Amino acid sequence: MGLRSGAEYIESLKKRKPNIYCLGKKVDNVLEHPVLKSTIATVARTFDLAKNPKYEDLLTVESPLLGGERVNRFLQPFFTVDHLVKRQHQIRFLQRQLGSCALRCTGLGMVNSLWETTYQIDEAKGTHYLDRLKDWLKYIQRYDIYETGCMMDVKGHRGLRPSKQPDPDMYLHIVERRPNGIVVRGAKASQSGPAISNETAVIPSAYGHDEADGPYAVAFAVPTDEKGITYIMQHNTGDALAYTGDDRDLGNPRYGGGFGSTSLMIFDDVFIPNERVFMAGEWEFSAAIVRTMGLMARMWQCGCRPALMELLTGAAAFAAQANGVANAAHIRSKLNDMTIHSQTAWGLALSAAYQGKSSPSGSGIVLPDSLTINVGKYRSVEGYWECCKLANDIAGGLATTVPSFKDYDNPETHGWMEKYLQANPDVPTEHRMRIMRLIQ
Amino acid sequence: MGLRSGAEYIESLKKRKPNIYCLGKKVDNVLEHPVLKSTIATVARTFDLAKNPKYEDLLTVESPLLGGERVNRFLQPFFTVDHLVKRQHQIRFLQRQLGSCALRCTGLGMVNSLWETTYQIDEAKGTHYLDRLKDWLKYIQRYDIYETGCMMDVKGHRGLRPSKQPDPDMYLHIVERRPNGIVVRGAKASQSGPAISNETAVIPSAYGHDEADGPYAVAFAVPTDEKGITYIMQHNTGDALAYTGDDRDLGNPRYGGGFGSTSLMIFDDVFIPNERVFMAGEWEFSAAIVRTMGLMARMWQCGCRPALMELLTGAAAFAAQANGVANAAHIRSKLNDMTIHSQTAWGLALSAAYQGKSSPSGSGIVLPDSLTINVGKYRSVEGYWECCKLANDIAGGLATTVPSFKDYDNPETHGWMEKYLQANPDVPTEHRMRIMRLIQ
Amino acid sequence: MGLRSGAEYIESLKKRKPNIYCLGKKVDNVLEHPVLKSTIATVARTFDLAKNPKYEDLLTVESPLLGGERVNRFLQPFFTVDHLVKRQHQIRFLQRQLGSCALRCTGLGMVNSLWETTYQIDEAKGTHYLDRLKDWLKYIQRYDIYETGCMMDVKGHRGLRPSKQPDPDMYLHIVERRPNGIVVRGAKASQSGPAISNETAVIPSAYGHDEADGPYAVAFAVPTDEKGITYIMQHNTGDALAYTGDDRDLGNPRYGGGFGSTSLMIFDDVFIPNERVFMAGEWEFSAAIVRTMGLMARMWQCGCRPALMELLTGAAAFAAQANGVANAAHIRSKLNDMTIHSQTAWGLALSAAYQGKSSPSGSGIVLPDSLTINVGKYRSVEGYWECCKLANDIAGGLATTVPSFKDYDNPETHGWMEKYLQANPDVPTEHRMRIMRLIQ
Amino acid sequence: MGLRSGAEYIESLKKRKPNIYCLGKKVDNVLEHPVLKSTIATVARTFDLAKNPKYEDLLTVESPLLGGERVNRFLQPFFTVDHLVKRQHQIRFLQRQLGSCALRCTGLGMVNSLWETTYQIDEAKGTHYLDRLKDWLKYIQRYDIYETGCMMDVKGHRGLRPSKQPDPDMYLHIVERRPNGIVVRGAKASQSGPAISNETAVIPSAYGHDEADGPYAVAFAVPTDEKGITYIMQHNTGDALAYTGDDRDLGNPRYGGGFGSTSLMIFDDVFIPNERVFMAGEWEFSAAIVRTMGLMARMWQCGCRPALMELLTGAAAFAAQANGVANAAHIRSKLNDMTIHSQTAWGLALSAAYQGKSSPSGSGIVLPDSLTINVGKYRSVEGYWECCKLANDIAGGLATTVPSFKDYDNPETHGWMEKYLQANPDVPTEHRMRIMRLIQ
Ligand SMILES: Cc1cc2nc3c(=O)[nH]c(=O)nc-3n(C[C@H](O)[C@H](O)[C@H](O)COP(=O)(O)OP(=O)(O)OC[C@H]3O[C@@H](n4cnc5c(N)ncnc54)[C@H](O)[C@@H]3O)c2cc1C
Ligand SMILES: Cc1cc2nc3c(=O)[nH]c(=O)nc-3n(C[C@H](O)[C@H](O)[C@H](O)COP(=O)(O)OP(=O)(O)OC[C@H]3O[C@@H](n4cnc5c(N)ncnc54)[C@H](O)[C@@H]3O)c2cc1C
Ligand SMILES: Cc1cc2nc3c(=O)[nH]c(=O)nc-3n(C[C@H](O)[C@H](O)[C@H](O)COP(=O)(O)OP(=O)(O)OC[C@H]3O[C@@H](n4cnc5c(N)ncnc54)[C@H](O)[C@@H]3O)c2cc1C
Ligand SMILES: Cc1cc2nc3c(=O)[nH]c(=O)nc-3n(C[C@H](O)[C@H](O)[C@H](O)COP(=O)(O)OP(=O)(O)OC[C@H]3O[C@@H](n4cnc5c(N)ncnc54)[C@H](O)[C@@H]3O)c2cc1C
Repeated sequence: MGLRSGAEYIESLKKRKPNIYCLGKKVDNVLEHPVLKSTIATVARTFDLAKNPKYEDLLTVESPLLGGERVNRFLQPFFTVDHLVKRQHQIRFLQRQLGSCALRCTGLGMVNSLWETTYQIDEAKGTHYLDRLKDWLKYIQRYDIYETGCMMDVKGHRGLRPSKQPDPDMYLHIVERRPNGIVVRGAKASQSGPAISNETAVIPSAYGHDEADGPYAVAFAVPTDEKGITYIMQHNTGDALAYTGDDRDLGNPRYGGGFGSTSLMIFDDVFIPNERVFMAGEWEFSAAIVRTMGLMARMWQCGCRPALMELLTGAAAFAAQANGVANAAHIRSKLNDMTIHSQTAWGLALSAAYQGKSSPSGSGIVLPDSLTINVGKYRSVEGYWECCKLANDIAGGLATTVPSFKDYDNPETHGWMEKYLQANPDVPTEHRMRIMRLIQ
Repeated sequence: MGLRSGAEYIESLKKRKPNIYCLGKKVDNVLEHPVLKSTIATVARTFDLAKNPKYEDLLTVESPLLGGERVNRFLQPFFTVDHLVKRQHQIRFLQRQLGSCALRCTGLGMVNSLWETTYQIDEAKGTHYLDRLKDWLKYIQRYDIYETGCMMDVKGHRGLRPSKQPDPDMYLHIVERRPNGIVVRGAKASQSGPAISNETAVIPSAYGHDEADGPYAVAFAVPTDEKGITYIMQHNTGDALAYTGDDRDLGNPRYGGGFGSTSLMIFDDVFIPNERVFMAGEWEFSAAIVRTMGLMARMWQCGCRPALMELLTGAAAFAAQANGVANAAHIRSKLNDMTIHSQTAWGLALSAAYQGKSSPSGSGIVLPDSLTINVGKYRSVEGYWECCKLANDIAGGLATTVPSFKDYDNPETHGWMEKYLQANPDVPTEHRMRIMRLIQ
Repeated sequence: MGLRSGAEYIESLKKRKPNIYCLGKKVDNVLEHPVLKSTIATVARTFDLAKNPKYEDLLTVESPLLGGERVNRFLQPFFTVDHLVKRQHQIRFLQRQLGSCALRCTGLGMVNSLWETTYQIDEAKGTHYLDRLKDWLKYIQRYDIYETGCMMDVKGHRGLRPSKQPDPDMYLHIVERRPNGIVVRGAKASQSGPAISNETAVIPSAYGHDEADGPYAVAFAVPTDEKGITYIMQHNTGDALAYTGDDRDLGNPRYGGGFGSTSLMIFDDVFIPNERVFMAGEWEFSAAIVRTMGLMARMWQCGCRPALMELLTGAAAFAAQANGVANAAHIRSKLNDMTIHSQTAWGLALSAAYQGKSSPSGSGIVLPDSLTINVGKYRSVEGYWECCKLANDIAGGLATTVPSFKDYDNPETHGWMEKYLQANPDVPTEHRMRIMRLIQ
Repeated sequence: MGLRSGAEYIESLKKRKPNIYCLGKKVDNVLEHPVLKSTIATVARTFDLAKNPKYEDLLTVESPLLGGERVNRFLQPFFTVDHLVKRQHQIRFLQRQLGSCALRCTGLGMVNSLWETTYQIDEAKGTHYLDRLKDWLKYIQRYDIYETGCMMDVKGHRGLRPSKQPDPDMYLHIVERRPNGIVVRGAKASQSGPAISNETAVIPSAYGHDEADGPYAVAFAVPTDEKGITYIMQHNTGDALAYTGDDRDLGNPRYGGGFGSTSLMIFDDVFIPNERVFMAGEWEFSAAIVRTMGLMARMWQCGCRPALMELLTGAAAFAAQANGVANAAHIRSKLNDMTIHSQTAWGLALSAAYQGKSSPSGSGIVLPDSLTINVGKYRSVEGYWECCKLANDIAGGLATTVPSFKDYDNPETHGWMEKYLQANPDVPTEHRMRIMRLIQ
C-alpha cells in the first residue's frame, strides 16, 4: 500500500463517525473544529514528512513483518539499538519541524509494550497473543494507519486499587465474555489523539495484585469511532485562544496542535472481537505492561522536550534581538542556561537509547536504559519550567500583554501597533509580535 | 466625602468615555466586556472591603492631608515604618481575598515616588511641584478615586536612550509647552488598570542623561478618558477563556481579573493643565523617580506573590485530598517546599518594611530597605515558578485536560463527567473540577 | 563586678581542671593545645569587644535582674523585640569581626529556653524552678561567666525514644535522687565550647511521652570541670591543619576557632546540687524546651551564616582581584548570586526578630517568629553550600592546592613561590596566598 | 615487556631523585612521606588491577603501535567510539575501586591532545612531530610507564596573555634553542602526579595570538626527575590529617590519595632533547591543543565524579542505617536525589562517548561530543556539591565532630567511645565511625 499522504489521512477522517462533545455541544465535523483542525493539520504533516525522500532514513524503517517494506517509524517496534537512537532523533526532528507535539508517540509506545508483554504471556501461559498482535501490526503498517495508545484510566480514589474502588468502573474492565469477543466498560482520562485517529490500542494503567484484578487486565485494539465510545474534549486557556484570536495569535498557527486535543474517552460497553484482544484476565502481567509503557512515555518526553526547549531558546534569542538587547551579558548567560537544560535532557535521551538492551531476551524487543531514562525525564521536566521562566524573562512583559492580531489588522489601531510595538528597527513589528506569541 | 462603595465606583465608570479597542473592535461598554467586567468586579471589591469596619485598620489609614480623616491605604504615602509593614499585610490580605491582583498598587507606588521626587526637585530648583501634588492627593483622597500609575514606555530599541531612538515617540515626551499646560505624546506599554480607573499618574521610565532627555522627564496626573488617549487591550490565553468557557471555567470567576486588563496606552498629543504637572524637563531627577518606582514595584510583588503562592499551596493541598493522596510522603514534601517558597518571599517582604528609612530625610517619606526588597522580589519570582510546577505535579494531568463546565451542564455528558471525574468520594466532582481550574 | 576582659577569661581557665582527651592523649594545658588555643583566643576577643565603648549598645544590654547594670548580651534573656533584633546584629557583627563562630550562642539559647520552660512548669506544677534559674542568671551575669549550652545527646538508635533504647544511657538521665541534689549519667555529642568554658547549662534533647521518660527530663547548670565529666575532642581535617601548618595556613589564624572545639562530653554519674536543677522528671515539658532550644539554634544560624557568606563573598571578590579578573561579567554575576544568598538569609533573620511575640504571654520572654526562622535556617544552609561552591569557582584551583606558609618561609623555595604565585601585580603574593587559605 | 605490577612501579620510584619540598622541608623519600605514600599506593593499585585478567577488557586495550599487544588503557589514544565508551567505564570502575582519583587521567588526555595537534601541525607545516610522538608512545606503552600531563601554567594576571605579562615566565616558554633541543622555563600550577610519576608530557595552557606568543607554544615529554625541575607540594586540610590522625582517620586509608598530591612544579631552565619535543613555536596550534586537553579534562571529570557521587550515596545510605533511620521517607528522598545527580552526570558521560566523532577526520583520533561533555561536566560539579550537602545532612553532626581513632585506641577513652558512639546496635561502633570519616 505504501505510505499515506497527509491528505489521505484527512480523507480517512471523513468516513469516521466518532461521538465527540466540546463546550457543551456535539462536534459534527472534526475538520472544522477550531481546536481539532490544527491538531489534524499537525498529524497530516507527520504523514507528509515521512513521504519526503530527504527524511526517509529518519522517519521510516524497514519492517520485517512486511518483508522489509519501509513503514512509518511510528508503527515499528524497537528491534535494535539503532532503532532506539533513530527514534530519539525522529522525535526531536518532528518537534522542531512542527513546533508541537507530534501526537503519535503513544501509538509507538503501545506496539513495544504489547509485543514485550504478549511474548511474556505466551511464554508463560501458552497463549497466542503475539500472533494476534503481529496480525494487527501488519494491518496498521500495510495501511499506514494513525494509531494512538490509551492507558491512563480516570482512576478514582488514588489510594485504592481497581477492584477496591467504590465504583467498579473507575478502571476499564471486562464486563462480559462472549465466544467471539469481550465487552469492556470504563473511561480513559486525558487521551491525546484518539478523537482524530483511526485506531487505538488500549492497555491497563494499574498493577494487578490477585484474581480480583483479573477483569482489569485487558488490552486490545479498536477503531476509534467504534460504537459505545464517547469523547468529551478538554478545554483550557490554550484551546480558548483558538476560538477568539486570529490564527497568528496561536503562536504556531499551522501546526500548533500542542496538547490541545486530549479528551475524556468513555467506553460504554464496547465489544472487542477476539482477534483484536491481546490480554484478557492475565493480571500477573499488568505490572509489566504498565512499567514498559511508562518507560516508553518517559523516553518520548526525554526526546521531545529538549527540542521544545531548543525552540524556546531560539525564540528567546530572537526576542532579545527584536528588543535590541541580544548582546547583553545577562541575556547571553540566560540563553546559555537554557542550552544547558535542553542539552542535559537530550544527552540523557540519547544515552538511554545507546545503552539499550533486549527485554526480555528472546522477545526481540530492545528497550532503553531505565535509570537513565528516568533521570532524563526528571531533567526534562525541571529544565522545561526553567526554560519557560527564562524565556519570559528575556522576552519582557510583551509576551504576556501583546494585543491580538485582530487589533493589528483593524485599520483604527494598526498604525499605533505598527509604530509602538516596534523595537529594534531591523526586526519588523509583526515578527516581534509573533515571537512574543510563541513564547506566551 | 468618605470611602466609596464598589457600586459607587462602578457607577463612576458609566460616566467615562474611554477609547478602548479589543480583538479588532471598539469596546463600547466596559461593564459588559467579558474580560474587563471581572477586572472591574475585583476593583469594586477592594472598595467594599475597605468600608468593612473589620478591616479598617488594615485597609484604611489616617491622612494628615485631610486632617486625620481615614482614607483608603492605597491613596496614602508612606510616612512611617508602620505604614510600610501594614502595607505588606494589606496586599497579602487582598491577594488572599480576591485570589487575584488587586490592580491598585501602581497608584500607591506613584504617590510615594512623586512625593519623594517633587520634594527633591523643589529643594534643588525652588519649584513648587510638591504643593501641586498635595492638591491632587487631597482630591483623590477626598473623592476616594481609583487612580493607577503609568510608567513603562514602549521603549523601542532597548540599547538606545529616549533622545537617541529613531522614532522620538518611543518614550512619552512633551511636544508642546503652552502657558497653561503641556502637550504630551508617546505610548505606555502593558498598563494594568487605567482603562477601568478614574485617574492615572504618569512618570518617565528612563534615566535622563543630559538636556536632550529633558522633554522625556515629564510627570503628571490625568483623567483616564482624557481626549487623545487610546487603549488597545492585551489578548492572551487567560483572557480567551473568558469568551469561550462557562464562568466556573475561569478558576476564580467572581474576582479573577488577574492581570487580564493591561493595555497598550497611547497618548496622541494629550493636553495636561499646569496644576497636574509634577515634572517637566528636570532630566536630572528622572533616575530618582524611576528607581523609587522600581522599588515600589518590587515591594508589591514581594508582598502579593507570597499570597499567590499560599493560594496555590492551598489549592494543591485540596487537589491532593480530592485525588485521595493527601497523606503521601512525596505530596507532603512538595507542599512543604511550596511553603518554603512563599514564606521566604513573605519574610523578606516584611523584613524590608521593618527596616524602612526616611528617604531623603526631610521629605517625610519612608522607604523599605532596597537590598532586601530586591532579594525578596528575586525570590518571589523564583518561588512562583517553582510553586506552579509543584502545584501541577500534585494536581495531576486533569489540571491541564479538564473539560469545560459547559460539558458538565450538558445533559448528554453530565452523567459521564459526574461519574468519571470523581476521585476521593468525600470530595464532590464539581469541587474537584473547580480546584483543577484554579490550578490551571 | 563589671565585664571581664579577654585576659581575665583566660586567667579563669588556668584554675579549671577539666578532663580532656585528644588524639589519644590527655590534654594537660588547654591554653597551649594547637586547636583549643585559637578557640580560646576567639572567645577572649568576644569579651574584649564587649568592653569596647564603641560596641556597648550592640554587645551589652541592661539587665533587670541586676537592677539595670549592663551585662554581656549573651547572658540576657529576650524580653523585647528590640532584644531580638539587636541580637541578630550582635551575632552578625561578631562573625564578621572574628571570621569564626563566636562559640557563645548555645549559652544564650539556654537562658531563653530555660526561662520559658521553668515559667511554664512553675505555672502548671507550683514548683519554683524559675527562681533558681534567676539566681543562677544573676551569678553568671554578675561574674560575666562564659557559659555554654548542652542539649544534643548521643541518641543511639534514632528510631527509638530514650526509655526504649537497648542502652539506657544513650540519653542523659537521672540515675539517683538525693535530698540535696541529683546524679546524672549519659553523654552529650558534638558540644561546642564546654571544654573551654566556665559553666554549662544542660537540657534534654528528646520529647517526653510518658512517665518512663521522666528520668530523661532533666535540666541543670554545672561547672564545666565538675567531677565525673570527661571530654573527647573531635578531630577533623580542619583541626589537623593546626598541627602541621604555619599559623597563616589556618586562613584566620588569630580567631579561627571555627567549630574546631566540639567534644563528646561524658557525664559519668555527676552530682548536681538542687539549687542548680531546673527540671527533674517533668517529662511533659521536655518537648517545649527542645522546641524552643531548636528555635534558638535556628535563630543563631540564620544570624551568623549570612555573615559567613558575606565573608566568603568578600574573600572571593578579593581573590578575583588578586587573579586579575575582578571585572569579568561571569565573576560579577557569581558575586551577585552570593549576595542574594547571604541577604536572603539575613533578611529572614531580621524578619523573624521583628515579628517576635511573647511566649507564652506572661513569661516575659519574647521569641522570634518560628515559621520565618525555620525558612531562614533552611535558606542559610542552602546558601552556605552555594557560596562555598561559588567562592571556589571564583578563586580557582589554588584555593585547594596552595603550598604551606612553611614553604613560603623556607629560603630554598621562598623565591619560587613569591615569583610564581603572584598574579595581579597590584596584590602582594602573600595576600593572595592568605585569601586562598581563607576560602579553603 | 608486558604490564608492570604495582610493586614494579614502586620499585621504579626508588631510582628517581626528584627535587620535592613540603611543609618547609625537602622530601627525601617519597615512599615514606605521609601524604605521598598513600597516593603512591593508589597508583600502584591501578597497575595491579590492570594485570588482573578479570579486568583485562576494561583496563587494557590492543595497541596498533605495538602490533596489537595489550597495553594499559591509560596509554592508548582513542581510535574508536568503543575506546571512548570503555574509557568512561574504566574511570568509573577505578574511582569505585579506589575511592579516590586514579591520578593517571592527565596522561591519557595528553596522548590524545598531542596526537591530534601534532597531526594538524604536520599537515599544515610539513613537520614530523607525530612520528616523534609515536616513538614516545611506543616507549611508554612498551615499558608501561606512569606518565602524567602538565598543562596549567601559574598564569599571573588572568587578564593578560603570556607575552604581555609583566614577568615573562608566568607561562612556560622556550628560553633557548640549541641544535639538539630546547631549554624551557616557567612553572605549572596544581600538578597532580608528576612528583610520583615516571614521565610527564607538557603542553601550553593559553591560546596563541601572534608571533609574540611563539615561545609559549611548546610541548614535550620529560622524565619527572629531570635536572632543573622542582616540586613544592600543596598542603591543605585533607593532607594535614595524614600527619596527625590514625590511618583509619583518613576515611579511605589504603588508597585515599585523593587529590592530595598536587604540587607547584618549577621548570628552571630545563633542557629537552629534540626527539621529545612535539611543538616548538607553532602558536597557531596552541588554541587547538588547549581546547582538546580541556575536552579531555571535562571527559574524565564527567566519568569519575559520578562514581564519587555513587560512593557518597552508598556511604550516606550506610550512615543512615548505622543511625537507625534508613527507612525514613526524607532520607530515602535524599538518597534518591543523590542518585539523580550521579546518574545525570554518568548518563551524559556515556552519551558524549557514544556520540564520538573523528577529529579531525584523517587523524585517526575520535573525540567525544563537545557540547554534551561540557554539559556533563557542569552537571557533575553541581551534583557533587549537592551530594556533599546531602551526605552531610543524612550522616548528622558526627561526620564533622567524630574524635580520632587514636582516642578510640586509647584505653582511657575506648570504652566511652565504644559505648556512646554506638547507634543502631546492628552496626558496630567502629564501622559507624569509619563511614563518618569517609563522608567527612
Ligand atoms: C501583567 C503586567 C502588568 C503590568 N502593569 C504595568 C503597569 O500597570 N504600569 C507600568 O508602568 N508597567 C506595567 N507593566 C510593565 C512592566 O513594568 C514591564 O513589563 C517590565 O518593567 C519589563 O519591561 P519590558 O516588558 O519592556 O521588558 P524589556 O525591557 O524588553 O526586557 C526584556 C529583557 O531585556 C532586558 N533588557 C532590557 N533593556 C536592556 C538593556 N538596556 N540592557 C540589557 N538588557 C536589557 C531585560 O533585563 C529583560 O531580560 C506590566 C507588565 C506586565 C507583564
Ligand atoms: C496533555 C496530556 C496528554 C496526555 N495524553 C495521554 C495519552 O495519550 N494516553 C494516556 O494514556 N494518558 C495520557 N495522559 C495522562 C497521563 O498519563 C497522566 O496525566 C499521568 O500519568 C498522571 O496521571 P493523573 O493525571 O491521573 O495524575 P494523578 O495520578 O492524580 O497524580 C497526581 C499526583 O498524585 C500522586 N499520586 C497518584 N497516585 C498516588 C498514590 N497511589 N500514592 C501516592 N501518590 C500518588 C502523583 O504522584 C501526583 O503527584 C495525558 C496527560 C496530559 C496532561
Ligand atoms: C586538585 C587539582 C588538581 C589539578 N591537577 C592538574 C593537573 O594534573 N594538570 C594540570 O595541568 N592542571 C591541574 N590542575 C589545575 C586546573 O587545571 C586549574 O585549577 C583549572 O584549570 C583552573 O585554573 P586556575 O586554578 O588557574 O583558576 P583561574 O584561572 O585563576 O580561575 C579562577 C576564576 O577566574 C576566572 N577567570 C580566569 N581567567 C579569566 C579571564 N581571562 N577572564 C575572565 N575570567 C577568568 C575563572 O573562570 C574562574 O572563575 C589541578 C587543579 C586542582 C584543583
Ligand atoms: C560543629 C557542631 C557543633 C555543635 N555544637 C553543639 C552544641 O554546642 N550543643 C549541642 O547541644 N549540640 C551541638 N551540636 C549537635 C547538633 O545539635 C546536632 O549535630 C544536630 O542536632 C543533629 O543531630 P545528630 O548529629 O545527632 O544527627 P542525627 O540525629 O543522627 O541525624 C542524621 C539524619 O538522620 C535524620 N534523623 C534523625 N533522627 C530521625 C528520626 N527519628 N526519624 C527520621 N529521621 C531522623 C536527621 O533528619 C538527619 O537527616 C553541634 C553539631 C556540630 C556539627
